[in-house]
Amino acid sequence: MAKDASSPSPSSLVPPTVPMELHVKNREKLLRALRQHLSDSSRPLRGFVFLQGGEEQLRHDTDHIELFRQESYFAYLFGATEPGFFGAIDVMTGNSLLFAPRLPADYAVWLGEIKPVSFFQEKYKVNMVFYTDEITQVLHQHYRGEEKPLLFLLHGLNTDSHKFAEPAKFEGIANFESDLNTLHPILTECRVLKSDLELALIQFANDISSEAHVQVMRNIRVGMKEYQLESMFLHHTYMYGGCRHCSYTCICATGGNSAVLHYGHAAAPNDRTFEDGDMALLDMGAEFSFYGSDITCSFPVNGKFTSDQRLVYNAVLAAHDAVISVMKPGVNWVDMHKLAEKTILDSLQKARILVGDVNEMMIERLGAVFMPHGLGHLLGIDTHDPGGYPKGLERPKEPGLSSLRTARELLEGMVITVEPGCYFIDALLEPAMESSKTAKFFNHEAVARFRGFGGVRIESDVYVTASSCINMTKVPRQESEIEAVMAGGRWPI
Amino acid sequence: MAKDASSPSPSSLVPPTVPMELHVKNREKLLRALRQHLSDSSRPLRGFVFLQGGEEQLRHDTDHIELFRQESYFAYLFGATEPGFFGAIDVMTGNSLLFAPRLPADYAVWLGEIKPVSFFQEKYKVNMVFYTDEITQVLHQHYRGEEKPLLFLLHGLNTDSHKFAEPAKFEGIANFESDLNTLHPILTECRVLKSDLELALIQFANDISSEAHVQVMRNIRVGMKEYQLESMFLHHTYMYGGCRHCSYTCICATGGNSAVLHYGHAAAPNDRTFEDGDMALLDMGAEFSFYGSDITCSFPVNGKFTSDQRLVYNAVLAAHDAVISVMKPGVNWVDMHKLAEKTILDSLQKARILVGDVNEMMIERLGAVFMPHGLGHLLGIDTHDPGGYPKGLERPKEPGLSSLRTARELLEGMVITVEPGCYFIDALLEPAMESSKTAKFFNHEAVARFRGFGGVRIESDVYVTASSCINMTKVPRQESEIEAVMAGGRWPI
Repeated sequence: MAKDASSPSPSSLVPPTVPMELHVKNREKLLRALRQHLSDSSRPLRGFVFLQGGEEQLRHDTDHIELFRQESYFAYLFGATEPGFFGAIDVMTGNSLLFAPRLPADYAVWLGEIKPVSFFQEKYKVNMVFYTDEITQVLHQHYRGEEKPLLFLLHGLNTDSHKFAEPAKFEGIANFESDLNTLHPILTECRVLKSDLELALIQFANDISSEAHVQVMRNIRVGMKEYQLESMFLHHTYMYGGCRHCSYTCICATGGNSAVLHYGHAAAPNDRTFEDGDMALLDMGAEFSFYGSDITCSFPVNGKFTSDQRLVYNAVLAAHDAVISVMKPGVNWVDMHKLAEKTILDSLQKARILVGDVNEMMIERLGAVFMPHGLGHLLGIDTHDPGGYPKGLERPKEPGLSSLRTARELLEGMVITVEPGCYFIDALLEPAMESSKTAKFFNHEAVARFRGFGGVRIESDVYVTASSCINMTKVPRQESEIEAVMAGGRWPI
Repeated sequence: MAKDASSPSPSSLVPPTVPMELHVKNREKLLRALRQHLSDSSRPLRGFVFLQGGEEQLRHDTDHIELFRQESYFAYLFGATEPGFFGAIDVMTGNSLLFAPRLPADYAVWLGEIKPVSFFQEKYKVNMVFYTDEITQVLHQHYRGEEKPLLFLLHGLNTDSHKFAEPAKFEGIANFESDLNTLHPILTECRVLKSDLELALIQFANDISSEAHVQVMRNIRVGMKEYQLESMFLHHTYMYGGCRHCSYTCICATGGNSAVLHYGHAAAPNDRTFEDGDMALLDMGAEFSFYGSDITCSFPVNGKFTSDQRLVYNAVLAAHDAVISVMKPGVNWVDMHKLAEKTILDSLQKARILVGDVNEMMIERLGAVFMPHGLGHLLGIDTHDPGGYPKGLERPKEPGLSSLRTARELLEGMVITVEPGCYFIDALLEPAMESSKTAKFFNHEAVARFRGFGGVRIESDVYVTASSCINMTKVPRQESEIEAVMAGGRWPI
């Protein structure tokens, strides 16, 4: 009685094959940029880019192993999914070298076949593969110089976490010269501009995550727990998209929770039972072969907008659409943030929730009361992809703007999230409604109606082209589309 | 158009409310044992048990936060799900104290409502709650003595990971005396014997995981990917059981992969497409409110056993049943391991895969060729729960037995996995078939038939009662049950 996979699939997608040329090209791109930099500074084109991959982590003192996910810079250059690797790129020859851990014989019994180095050479399309206990010897052999070989190590500030990348460490590193300053800014800048092969993976992560969001919209029912929405999303993206990792912990916020920007973590674990009349704000994105997506949908859990929900939703959608309509290379991201703020304030003023002149509100930074987070961030192998503040670019200091993860001008090849939001957060509203500078802007009676409303966020992943931009996220956005899909209508229409 | 949850649920279960009395009783149990120990050693009944909870971890230099799961000893005593806590128990008064992190004002905007200490006092049923910056001051106030207050800190060996528990650290610890030796063995021994409240959670984790295994059996189709089975399992246990965490990374091994004991990790990531005729070995268990389950089902992916599959399966099932039929307090676990081995060797000999005297095979440790892992391990807040080798109990050195995670005598209140297996692993078979001591036992022609077969494991979670034991795992085990359920039959029958 052999069964077959004949039951209809709720997905039209199939996980694509990942071309290792993607990482070959990433290495070539780095090599070009690094050689250019060395030439420009009259330094010899010599030495090795040298990175350490991630290691499996045990939980505290136990033997519980957390599911491993490769360190992002290492993933970018080498694409290796296994822990315990090192990688090098010879600046002179361009040769790429991987160093795999030498596994003990009983690995074969417990953890799987012990692969020969030729397996990894083929799999990851690198020039050579050795064992990690051969690093010193191999790099010395490949170095054409009298002095100690030079290693370009990764060390630099992540401007989102404010932590520093840890340079590679291995026994024998004392036999090398090391340069801690050159590599990080150059490699980070490589990651900022996506290649076509990278875009294809981000597109697939978007496609499967978009489909999963629609699946959740269709299956949400009043009386469920928020985590059931997370479960449906995770299942769809893994079952049909092969996405074992998410880009970030799912935010499944309903009712008042939707005003908590990073809801969903262990201390606020998506455990509310939601009720008729609530809004849902679902910020969920799957990762496919290291490359992520980051998508937020907001909608009423019962499938039908109230007039107040429509009002706030359309204010945010107008901001989202306004930004995407003008994004192109050369546009400054701080201006886009302000455009989003102004669009939202305009809507709130038209609805008489706010009163007075919107330009004055902008001067008083009233937008930051309703949208305290930044408009969006670079997206790639990290959800908050690095490179938002290259050296010399200052983070703005004003409320709201100071939350921006980048203040750059857009460049062709960037993928950036556009995620305006409008929230009713007591901790921000109350001081603003009492302040002598901003109290006058509020229609206190109208604002009172929105206490406990929560918030709305609409987030898409947008790719900047030569002359414009493309929205990679494909979910129902218009109020009518959302209501139709939630009532069982087809998507895409 | 309000929708309701009217569609039929594939689950008959509802996540139970977790009583915080569970952790109150855990603390009382520790206090009794610790006071007894201090009395027996003529030491004063004074000082504080003092533990540090876990912290959220960022991934490398990024701001990607891994979903937090509490450190297990801290979870046992305090039940707190949030990161950044400390906890104390006053040995003299028995009072329990939690120390919560003092959160910055903008936490309310980004991460959620800032709870007052009274919230945590109520939620976790402790006597007092303070902030972590008050530890030194508060403990000094509560200490009745002239000298520096004494802290019983957690420090000791985990005999599975061979790592040491890290004692708590905080600013001001220099103002205390500390004892690193007393607490760990006593607290570990408390965890070995489960209370009724703990058993109820382990039972729920077993119930929802058992149901999820059945769900996977019903929905498996030839041509799927292994990870799709993982996705179905995770979805069922989260969606209907509220289990956000798994006890361990799912092992979804098919065909030859089922001979890789810890398959499923990042370097062997459940990514094979399985084929008609393959066996599946699915080792998957959900965790509910810290307490875990650990269940393995083995079955043919097409729903129908071949005669060879039946042979190996029934050999393992006979071992599983033989062990459970004799488990009770006082029984030695090494003897149980040997009983399982002997039962499997008997079956293989009856099927003429092995030839000769089974007792001789036992002397030559042939059982370890087919079952290189231990028969089972203590289960609780950790999948490999600590306490398998208390001080003075030596780990056996013989092949197979050396893999045992405990060599103890069973005690009432233990929960232990019974997980015999029979695998055809080239790396073990080949040397054994060539060895002058064991070559004679093999019917080489018959063994050849099983190359590439993989293996079978059957794993249940078993609770030791006063006079016997109870199998907490409720999945189809008989060949006929499995075939009936996979053909769509009811479960339980």
